Amino acid sequence: MIIRQILVTPVAFRDPPLLNAAGVHEPWALRTIVEVVTDEGLTGLGETYGDVKHLGKVRECAQALIGLDVHATNTMYARISTIVSDSSTGATTKEKSIDRVFSPFEVACLDVRGKAAGVPITDLLGGQVRDAVPYSAYLFYKWAGHPNQEQDRFGTALDESGIVEQASLLIKQYGFRSIKLKGGVFPPDQEVAATKALHAAFPELPLRLDPNAAWTVETSIRVGRELDGILQYLEDPTPGIPGMAEVAAAVPMPLATNMCVVTHEHLPPAIASRAIGVLLLDHHYWGGLIRSSHVATLCDTFGLALSMHSNSHLGISLAAMTHLAAATPNLTFACDTHTPWQDGQDVVQPGALRFVDGAVPVPTGPGLGVELDRDALARMNEQYEKCGILARDDTSYMQRFDPAFSARRSRW
Amino acid sequence: MIIRQILVTPVAFRDPPLLNAAGVHEPWALRTIVEVVTDEGLTGLGETYGDVKHLGKVRECAQALIGLDVHATNTMYARISTIVSDSSTGATTKEKSIDRVFSPFEVACLDVRGKAAGVPITDLLGGQVRDAVPYSAYLFYKWAGHPNQEQDRFGTALDESGIVEQASLLIKQYGFRSIKLKGGVFPPDQEVAATKALHAAFPELPLRLDPNAAWTVETSIRVGRELDGILQYLEDPTPGIPGMAEVAAAVPMPLATNMCVVTHEHLPPAIASRAIGVLLLDHHYWGGLIRSSHVATLCDTFGLALSMHSNSHLGISLAAMTHLAAATPNLTFACDTHTPWQDGQDVVQPGALRFVDGAVPVPTGPGLGVELDRDALARMNEQYEKCGILARDDTSYMQRFDPAFSARRSRW
Ligand SMILES: [Mg+2]
Ligand SMILES: [Mg+2]
Repeated sequence: MIIRQILVTPVAFRDPPLLNAAGVHEPWALRTIVEVVTDEGLTGLGETYGDVKHLGKVRECAQALIGLDVHATNTMYARISTIVSDSSTGATTKEKSIDRVFSPFEVACLDVRGKAAGVPITDLLGGQVRDAVPYSAYLFYKWAGHPNQEQDRFGTALDESGIVEQASLLIKQYGFRSIKLKGGVFPPDQEVAATKALHAAFPELPLRLDPNAAWTVETSIRVGRELDGILQYLEDPTPGIPGMAEVAAAVPMPLATNMCVVTHEHLPPAIASRAIGVLLLDHHYWGGLIRSSHVATLCDTFGLALSMHSNSHLGISLAAMTHLAAATPNLTFACDTHTPWQDGQDVVQPGALRFVDGAVPVPTGPGLGVELDRDALARMNEQYEKCGILARDDTSYMQRFDPAFSARRSRW
Repeated sequence: MIIRQILVTPVAFRDPPLLNAAGVHEPWALRTIVEVVTDEGLTGLGETYGDVKHLGKVRECAQALIGLDVHATNTMYARISTIVSDSSTGATTKEKSIDRVFSPFEVACLDVRGKAAGVPITDLLGGQVRDAVPYSAYLFYKWAGHPNQEQDRFGTALDESGIVEQASLLIKQYGFRSIKLKGGVFPPDQEVAATKALHAAFPELPLRLDPNAAWTVETSIRVGRELDGILQYLEDPTPGIPGMAEVAAAVPMPLATNMCVVTHEHLPPAIASRAIGVLLLDHHYWGGLIRSSHVATLCDTFGLALSMHSNSHLGISLAAMTHLAAATPNLTFACDTHTPWQDGQDVVQPGALRFVDGAVPVPTGPGLGVELDRDALARMNEQYEKCGILARDDTSYMQRFDPAFSARRSRW
């Protein structure tokens, strides 16, 4: 099956004012939708970041893949490596750039292959080991709404009672059985209090806290010890592999990361220094689904557990994440997803993806099991053109309202 | 595509008296041929070891896979794990046993999937990165023939001139561009002399020497230093990861292994102690082709180079090895194969596999690209029934002719 055409469409969707160590989510989140069209009429879907530089690379690379067979992913990767390496500025991010650009094409090609074989993508990854993938309630401190805009339905969450209320709302609607709190927003003691309030309100549910490396090693150790018996894992308390290793040696729970280990070159030093106990897999930057499954094997070999990372995303990504997690035996932690925050906005037709008791049943249709909603795609592309945002910048947006804000890490 | 039937057929084929640290090859080599028959009429092929205990496990596990879809390899692996773990005696070999039993079923299922999709197995592994896979001339010290039998066409090789002659014969017939000498047979200085003679006769060809852990650390270091500039890599000079690490730190060339790292649990200590520079991949014990490709990624991540190991095998295995190597970008060393020693005996129909300039062009047919020769299979199964050998035992066979022989390692 030869690739005849690749359509690359940037989209924007409304995003609530979610707070984090870098600032606050802007009113629009960006994604790029990739459609791989083959000579036999089958089309595959992929979804990736929407920042304009990344979008440019995806567009450039799309041209280089025309004429290749959908199975020729090694050749695709090599071609993308050449293009991205030429246009890349820093060597340290080169591998990550290649993997990020490659990912949506790989997912789309697997979608085509699954459709051709009449099997879901899980079957191209070794088959289902679970028929539904548990996700966690991903809590954020947040404002009631974007400044000068209407309030959103999620309400304010600027202290522990707001966080517990938000958890109740999400758990009621989605049935989540694990909770993750995005921290790094308030001084650590406030976030410890919120975590303890969550534990008191939901004593049965595993809890994670992710301050996005906002803390020093000392603070991380203090917080980690204080949350002994409460946290399932502590995610990226402090920046860098050496700092994480210091914390890991001193706190009772495993450390997780989607920050200090994001490409293959980070794995040897992180493993040698025992910096992490849990890797948050993310096929968007680990080079697609099959390369992510290789990373999963590597983690298994070295005794690292697996969870899954999420950025703001749409249904193509949720389907891909679900297939990957369903086919990865050692991905035993509930995954992260931003799905609740997109509040029904999507580029895929409704019905294929739903939450049952906090888990997404693996779509049963061939390939990803989701189909594009062309009207929605057109509408969201129009939103992209109009919204005026070209790259996510939580920090500048925050500084519009709080000029003194600094995203410095470690902050506390 | 549901598995309706699995046929498991042991076969035997004539094997020359090849010498190694364990003794000498018996007159018959054993293999097991696996045929996976699906409800849609497609059949896939696999090939594995023929020792009777292994054969028993393969037969037992075959029954447990009936009714599964050919894509459900995760479930197959889990079922085989349960069966093999129950019948396994030693915990240290459990993972290896599972991977060994799983492998032929996985290859056969990929063969079915390739046939269904109309693509070669390389395409299920990411696509070809090379259209032919280079193999090395695999030299053995050997007798002229088995005692009390006719001489074979390969002649005697009991000193350096015999080894150089054998190299000339194999290179003339197959066009090999790399050479591997199986050592561990004579005192190390004789094997050093043979290696130097090979280097003098074929100065352009990369050379490897594999004494199968017959040497002490001290001997290994002495030989390694003496063969500086002559060996591409030194394979398993001494037993065990700690010994290999000591040697690796003291010799100029990388060490390779198919002995001290044969399952996932060996990788962390081997990597931490820098015991090896080259892993010899072997899908027969690394759990099939896809699991082997995961190991290949792991090696790439940790800076280990890849070559490929071989036992006496037939064409199903040669096809599988060739597909795997052709789709593995970082498998850059010429692979090992025993193919010349089987001297045309095979269970597959002739034509699909051939050597051109020492390399096997990737079979272009769907799946493995080879078809069973049913007459040959029946004949070789009859040979199995008659030959009286139930498990490979080079040592006992050697002791029939040299009662004082000991396979003790380290011997020198
Ligand atoms: Mg995180
Ligand atoms: Mg060897």
